[in-house]
Amino acid sequence: MQIVMINDKIVPIEEIGPEYLDRGIFFGDGVYEVLRSYSGKIFAFDDHLARFERSLDEIQITGVDIQQVRSRVLMAFEKAGFKDARIYFHITRGSGPRDHLPDKNARPNFFLTVSELKDNSKLKAEGVAVSTYPDLRWKRCDIKSLNLLPNVLARMDSAKKGCWEAIFVDDAGLLTEGAGSAFFGIVNGVLRTSSLKANILPSVTRKYVIMAANNIGLKVVEKSLKVGEAAKANELFLAVTTRDIISIVKFDGHPIADAKPGNWTKQLIEEFKKFIV
Amino acid sequence: MQIVMINDKIVPIEEIGPEYLDRGIFFGDGVYEVLRSYSGKIFAFDDHLARFERSLDEIQITGVDIQQVRSRVLMAFEKAGFKDARIYFHITRGSGPRDHLPDKNARPNFFLTVSELKDNSKLKAEGVAVSTYPDLRWKRCDIKSLNLLPNVLARMDSAKKGCWEAIFVDDAGLLTEGAGSAFFGIVNGVLRTSSLKANILPSVTRKYVIMAANNIGLKVVEKSLKVGEAAKANELFLAVTTRDIISIVKFDGHPIADAKPGNWTKQLIEEFKKFIV
Repeated sequence: MQIVMINDKIVPIEEIGPEYLDRGIFFGDGVYEVLRSYSGKIFAFDDHLARFERSLDEIQITGVDIQQVRSRVLMAFEKAGFKDARIYFHITRGSGPRDHLPDKNARPNFFLTVSELKDNSKLKAEGVAVSTYPDLRWKRCDIKSLNLLPNVLARMDSAKKGCWEAIFVDDAGLLTEGAGSAFFGIVNGVLRTSSLKANILPSVTRKYVIMAANNIGLKVVEKSLKVGEAAKANELFLAVTTRDIISIVKFDGHPIADAKPGNWTKQLIEEFKKFIV
Repeated sequence: MQIVMINDKIVPIEEIGPEYLDRGIFFGDGVYEVLRSYSGKIFAFDDHLARFERSLDEIQITGVDIQQVRSRVLMAFEKAGFKDARIYFHITRGSGPRDHLPDKNARPNFFLTVSELKDNSKLKAEGVAVSTYPDLRWKRCDIKSLNLLPNVLARMDSAKKGCWEAIFVDDAGLLTEGAGSAFFGIVNGVLRTSSLKANILPSVTRKYVIMAANNIGLKVVEKSLKVGEAAKANELFLAVTTRDIISIVKFDGHPIADAKPGNWTKQLIEEFKKFIV
């Protein structure tokens, strides 16, 4: 027999639900996605599902029917009825006794939330402040996994500094991406962002930002910015699913240009809207 | 209102328990310990509690009374009544809506299991095979956190190769530690193990192994082994709380010496027993 204690209560293991023995909590052994809808339509649904399927493959979680995931997302989204919704979901490798090696009988657990996105026009109009934080993350940030403690620590640090987001700096002094966003800068009239080889997430919003840049004739170079370059950039911004493009007006305390969203950023925001049909 | 879906079931958020909204599952935002008892007495309890307190501090989980943790462990251990027990516990930053930035009202969640340790004399007599795996982990492996996906992937890989444990190899070709153990080698009559500066866990068992080595006159050098050195070592072994010292008889398919536990390893196992009072 095995004894389990939850907070100050001892319970026989037979009486606790599989949620307490989820490999997600013991190991972060799972992957997730965040989607949003605009006016009742989920944006870039196929891109997110394709990335999710890749994440599952990369950590070898098998037995997931991606079309079932699609149906569940749609079912919950319709039930929630929010025009502008944020949809979060994860799949873990399953529940079982805590052992690094998965139990052969473990079956993936699915969990999803839908919440309403509030109006963010003020945030978009004013822009945000960001701070930097060492990139302590593992070497497979291309996988959207539940191992997010360094992201939490970075975000806690940025909040203490009165900032909205933390931007990771790697050992070479290069800015990789935000704790929960992709990072962009406009330097000498060129749009710069880290290459997908720089141990970053293949951000869906990043992909659409690059398309928008191409559409408006803004040259894109996939090369990480150095900290010093970012502080002196013409414009900086973040790309994140739930808010698409957000201007950065302060970087580690330095105002960016006149500390107001820049013209290229505003043009990209307008161009991005065309993808939202 | 927020909609939650658990597997194929939609539930209003008010009806789900805090265990589904645990920051442990969303982010691996927590730390853990594993203890064992020998013949009814918990081994190195103070060492483990001190390390746990340090892990909590390092990720800034506040409001945990370490003496309360001690009492809970003892209560569950006594209730379980196993002479040779394995005690696992973790504390997460708490439950709340999924946001990297913790909710100010989040209160730490405690979870513990006690299980019976089976006789491992066969394993100790025969030794185990290990394989290597790239060290993909984050840069703060000194913190015993719930971000353990690379350890899971390593152990899955080693199991496929018929091995008992995976040993991490860093970018410089150095062996850091096992996916769930400390790693030691005896090369030219000297006991080698990674320095605590090599981004490894300050293993409690490692500390006692080093004390045992000092006691039997075996010189200790804290310098990581290279893969090539390990394959040709006189002896190799693992140190892990639940099994103290386990000989490695095969390394990436190469037999170590005559593929039987070596003499120094056996002496260390005997010497280690003296710490178990």
